[in-house]
Amino acid sequence: MSTFNVELKKVVDDSYDIEIGFELMNTLIQDLKNGLVGKIRKFAVITDSIVKDLYADKIHSLLLAEGYQADLFVFEAGEKQKTRKTKEEIEDAMLAKGYRRDCCIIAVGGGVVTDLAGFVAGTYGRGVPFINYATTLLAAADASVGGKTAVDTPLATNLIGLFNQPQKVYLDIATWKTLPKRQVISGMAETIKHACLANREFFDYLDANMDKLLEVDKEACEHIAEENCKVKYEVVMKDERESGLREVLNLGHTVGRAIETVSDYELLHGEAVSIGIVAEVKLAYKLGYMNANERDAVIALLQKARLPVAIPEYIDREELVRKLYTDKKVRDGKLRFVIQKGIGDVVEFEPGVFATPIEESVAREIIMDM
Amino acid sequence: MSTFNVELKKVVDDSYDIEIGFELMNTLIQDLKNGLVGKIRKFAVITDSIVKDLYADKIHSLLLAEGYQADLFVFEAGEKQKTRKTKEEIEDAMLAKGYRRDCCIIAVGGGVVTDLAGFVAGTYGRGVPFINYATTLLAAADASVGGKTAVDTPLATNLIGLFNQPQKVYLDIATWKTLPKRQVISGMAETIKHACLANREFFDYLDANMDKLLEVDKEACEHIAEENCKVKYEVVMKDERESGLREVLNLGHTVGRAIETVSDYELLHGEAVSIGIVAEVKLAYKLGYMNANERDAVIALLQKARLPVAIPEYIDREELVRKLYTDKKVRDGKLRFVIQKGIGDVVEFEPGVFATPIEESVAREIIMDM
Repeated sequence: MSTFNVELKKVVDDSYDIEIGFELMNTLIQDLKNGLVGKIRKFAVITDSIVKDLYADKIHSLLLAEGYQADLFVFEAGEKQKTRKTKEEIEDAMLAKGYRRDCCIIAVGGGVVTDLAGFVAGTYGRGVPFINYATTLLAAADASVGGKTAVDTPLATNLIGLFNQPQKVYLDIATWKTLPKRQVISGMAETIKHACLANREFFDYLDANMDKLLEVDKEACEHIAEENCKVKYEVVMKDERESGLREVLNLGHTVGRAIETVSDYELLHGEAVSIGIVAEVKLAYKLGYMNANERDAVIALLQKARLPVAIPEYIDREELVRKLYTDKKVRDGKLRFVIQKGIGDVVEFEPGVFATPIEESVAREIIMDM
Repeated sequence: MSTFNVELKKVVDDSYDIEIGFELMNTLIQDLKNGLVGKIRKFAVITDSIVKDLYADKIHSLLLAEGYQADLFVFEAGEKQKTRKTKEEIEDAMLAKGYRRDCCIIAVGGGVVTDLAGFVAGTYGRGVPFINYATTLLAAADASVGGKTAVDTPLATNLIGLFNQPQKVYLDIATWKTLPKRQVISGMAETIKHACLANREFFDYLDANMDKLLEVDKEACEHIAEENCKVKYEVVMKDERESGLREVLNLGHTVGRAIETVSDYELLHGEAVSIGIVAEVKLAYKLGYMNANERDAVIALLQKARLPVAIPEYIDREELVRKLYTDKKVRDGKLRFVIQKGIGDVVEFEPGVFATPIEESVAREIIMDM
């Protein structure tokens, strides 16, 4: 018997830039000409059926005009298409068009597109570079930092995928103008969550500028896009593989995700998270980590953003309590919550531990009261 | 417009050990008890329908006896099962059994099993650790170093996958005894290839010990398993993402892969590679990089291993020449070959360039003459 050691230690640099601005398509083309992805001249533009007409067609045309080889790969819009089957169809279409390892993928769209296209890029030819051109506030708040890519399966959400960092991310604020108002409002929930858990000053900024934000004012939106990146970066950098600190991003999501499911996705993700945040500030107040003013300030800001702050009538409260147990933070059959501390901070229960067990009876009382 | 820099530079240590020996199942269990994969206590054993009865059942039982949670995930044996569909079926079965991120995959089998299971591990829960328990000479020679995992698609071989390093590899020589003789012989082709391209001493060892090797003599087989690891490690380490140096592993494969396909997989991979090596030493001789003695010594060693050294009658030579153009080394429509230099070396045409353009007429002449 003998042992052979395969020594594979190396420095990996996955650093990248997030460009935040208004109408960034020409910036993207200029970056490619300046060597953003080296000598690559073949681009697979992946998008959904809605974003295609709005933005992806334009990017495709600009690439062709520049003399690059480029093709559009379009799938039907919607979270339900974020599947292995869609991934397979895109792969087969790319193979049929002769794409090999010397290509780059450009994802144009919201979180579903960037999640799916980033996953395709991670396994195509054992990995090709990709670029995210994000066209929603939610993608800006959620998908631009962290490197998470995935698809859903019948039995699990986001459980098949990989960590894969893009070459560059573009957050084009101009695209937010074409979003339905309900989507803009829904996207605001993750932004408010970031302020609640990490930055009091940012919270005050949102409070002072919410009307401008909902009208997609250029400067105000650029500012919140930057702040969102900062908060996620601080949290993700310190905990890249999602254990302790990264759980703080789950604020509002314990109740939020459960409501989203019980509503059978009638509620948008951000709307459900908003209600979840309300439940969780009430919990924090009850546990003595927030005072009444702080609790009410959070609820008032959500209302100012026109987000829902009460559990809709049609939601079965008992089913909601049961659904809490499907949360990924559940450990040894016990519910666990991230608890906000004042405004702009969360409770660290032990070094590196940011979620704490909560009795079902305590959670139930809050839910029954909403 | 503003730019946010996501700084993600870090040291990654993917080092691992390859254990080479006779009957290593208890060593595997002991390693797990000693913390090879930390606190993980859930093991998904992935194998094929042939290896299941021979070895995987045993490993499964040993895991259960040790108090671990373990399940077998079995797919039908054969290269044709190395698909996205099989991957999906394994994932769904694992999800249904409640496997989440806190599990480890153990691949038990030959190259098809380790390729597929390593890919499953790479995307399950965005990556779980995996261990390879290799049961064929080919897996020992080919799949233990390099981190390549992949599946085939109708349009491409090995083009969907990722680079993923195992926690540990076990090369159990005892398992080679249960291989059909034809498989042992076929596996020897990659071993001879390694000797040809990198190590004259190893070539002489093979020449002196071929009979012992074909009878799966313990010491001799352990020695060649080690030497195979060394050669692949030297080549792979210097060129992890497969560009220049890694192409040398392609020796014999330009003609070999083409024959394998034209034979409609009647020839095993190693048999086809053997014929490919013969074609390519004849080419090297013609180009003046080998003398007649060296050329004949290579052919004689392949014969000693009972590998085929001539193109079978039923192969259409014209089709074979056309098929050469599907080789991945083809560039700008020109055939490119790795050329052996004497015995134990290859020609470096320019710094870092190990494949050279060859006129079709030259390749054709050699093929027509075999």
